Amino acid sequence: MLNTALETLSTPALILDEDRMLRNVQRLRDCLLPHGVSIRPHLKTVKSVEGARRILEGGNGPATVSTLKEAEVFAAAGVTDILYAVGIAPDKLERVCRIRAGGCSLSVTLDTAAQAEAVVKAAKKAGMVIPALIEIDCDNHRAGLNPHSPELLRIGRILAAGSCLRGVMTHAGESYKAVGADALAACAEVERAAVVQAAGTLAGVGLACPVVSVGATPTAHFARDLSGVTEVRAGVYVMFDLVMAGTGTCTLDDIALSVLTTVIGHQQEQGWIMVDAGWMALSRDRGTATQAVDQGYGLVCDVEGRLLEGLFVLSVNQEHGIVASRPGASTPLPHLPLGTRLRILPNHACATGGQHDGYHVVQAAEPNRLAYWPRFRGW
Amino acid sequence: MLNTALETLSTPALILDEDRMLRNVQRLRDCLLPHGVSIRPHLKTVKSVEGARRILEGGNGPATVSTLKEAEVFAAAGVTDILYAVGIAPDKLERVCRIRAGGCSLSVTLDTAAQAEAVVKAAKKAGMVIPALIEIDCDNHRAGLNPHSPELLRIGRILAAGSCLRGVMTHAGESYKAVGADALAACAEVERAAVVQAAGTLAGVGLACPVVSVGATPTAHFARDLSGVTEVRAGVYVMFDLVMAGTGTCTLDDIALSVLTTVIGHQQEQGWIMVDAGWMALSRDRGTATQAVDQGYGLVCDVEGRLLEGLFVLSVNQEHGIVASRPGASTPLPHLPLGTRLRILPNHACATGGQHDGYHVVQAAEPNRLAYWPRFRGW
Repeated sequence: MLNTALETLSTPALILDEDRMLRNVQRLRDCLLPHGVSIRPHLKTVKSVEGARRILEGGNGPATVSTLKEAEVFAAAGVTDILYAVGIAPDKLERVCRIRAGGCSLSVTLDTAAQAEAVVKAAKKAGMVIPALIEIDCDNHRAGLNPHSPELLRIGRILAAGSCLRGVMTHAGESYKAVGADALAACAEVERAAVVQAAGTLAGVGLACPVVSVGATPTAHFARDLSGVTEVRAGVYVMFDLVMAGTGTCTLDDIALSVLTTVIGHQQEQGWIMVDAGWMALSRDRGTATQAVDQGYGLVCDVEGRLLEGLFVLSVNQEHGIVASRPGASTPLPHLPLGTRLRILPNHACATGGQHDGYHVVQAAEPNRLAYWPRFRGW
Repeated sequence: MLNTALETLSTPALILDEDRMLRNVQRLRDCLLPHGVSIRPHLKTVKSVEGARRILEGGNGPATVSTLKEAEVFAAAGVTDILYAVGIAPDKLERVCRIRAGGCSLSVTLDTAAQAEAVVKAAKKAGMVIPALIEIDCDNHRAGLNPHSPELLRIGRILAAGSCLRGVMTHAGESYKAVGADALAACAEVERAAVVQAAGTLAGVGLACPVVSVGATPTAHFARDLSGVTEVRAGVYVMFDLVMAGTGTCTLDDIALSVLTTVIGHQQEQGWIMVDAGWMALSRDRGTATQAVDQGYGLVCDVEGRLLEGLFVLSVNQEHGIVASRPGASTPLPHLPLGTRLRILPNHACATGGQHDGYHVVQAAEPNRLAYWPRFRGW
């Protein structure tokens, strides 16, 4: 049965499979339920109010964001508890105060005494508190304090003196490089141990640390022990992608995001099928390049989303994609005439989503009706 | 002197140096003047009406685009001669006809008989001509016919029978991998020879071929002979970037585009300076990775645009960038405290620009006044 809605949409276009998304959302809830921790989904992946309603607990429960623009949009949509999980720049604090004054409990993240002082000063000036989480570095991936750093207590005391200490957080960014349940569980334990230790250090000198936050999609799904943790953040799990499949966190059937494209030509001698999705539609992300299986710029499905075995997107220009047989593929290049619709599974859902203004949403129950959920961007 | 406008802008933000851009635009005009060819700038880089006015001859002269959205926006802004330089999908022809009916002479690109038949059919149905260029493949880079292909005459005859044959075009995509004046001049000659031969083949059987179009930024600047060519297309030259500097097509001082960012932390032990420009602001483009000098995710300048020697953007997450010393750098990591403003020169101007909603435009004559030129995107 042809999906007439997807056959007539102008291409390239971003397609979201809502059934898969809802299944992914429920899977992580089920996964975390036995641990008794709350979930604070990271909305940097979906960047859509309609999407967030289906992801957040009760439709507008606790959320994580990566920009103040996200905080503003989701606060305006009724989300009342948001963590801005990128280190706060002092000149952004006025904007934080405005969002908080609007009724959203926005909290910030920091890892230096200078930031803590700026937070306390801005809070005092605005006559409010600005709850702050101290970022802990659990795996030398990015930002954060070593949990053993003497700066931890110094920052904790500065924040506590201004009533701005809310807790500690970390992100096991290195878990994206691990593969399989045991390796991912080990990353989760590294993540848990670092942040629980930091919380203990603060509590040990009487600095209350109500929030102990961890988060990364792979660790959220494979953690075996979350003792001492109060909440888990994760983002890309709602969509999943080829990088996550490469880590063993999901299967290809879990990937909810794809880019609809049209065949615009063939280079017979090269074995290339030209499509109208280039890097502008797929993103330049090559996250699978360092994994065991390099997926090029994405895997290729038919218009219904069924994988076409042995194909991948070999290369891209701005508005051209080149589909070809994978190295070593045993199946011949299929006959895909001019005008054929295909769907490309992305390496990285956050990056591919970011290239589009909205989702065309498919649901099995109504195969020929597409909903449209606008996305936003900017800072 | 501090640039107060750039010190107070919310970050990350896209900065365009208008003086450099105008210099780049003039340089290519001067370069092509002795050849007696016209210039048809590719607007996929700038994607801004204000920008296009400064790039096109007379403000609205001939242009090239990579999407029909670009064609629609620039046609609405008064550009009357546009080439859509991506192989036409038959289902996009209705939209092409609508743009043409609005008064813009939009032409299309194709390389198959099936596309030529679809163009002639759509033109007939709409009661107009749809001028088409046959794409020639000069260097096995992407789309197009081998200039020796027997399909060339077949397609030419189909188009000519429907009064839709306008000419031939090619793009020396492989020139992005060449380095230095002699190598780039050789690419330009490959480009010229292929398309001039194809035009001759068509003319030899009486198929009029008024347009003979070549184009790529490196070849446009280094071509020594353009005999037989009628027009040159180029896009990224208006901004330039690190990839173009790596080919020797420009110097770092020609790069007109940068991303303004703020220092948000330090990882002293790692030698990392954290900034608030990640891949969402810089793009995932790693075009310099295969060049002689890998520039990471970009080079680092102070807020005035002066290069900070020895630094680069080592890695990025969605909203975090990590600035570090280049491998082998002899200068120590400079002291860049929390809140310091920096500017990052991009690998690929088209990709970095695509991540932003507009340009904050600086001009030496008015250092503390920023103009704002909106960008658009989508298809």
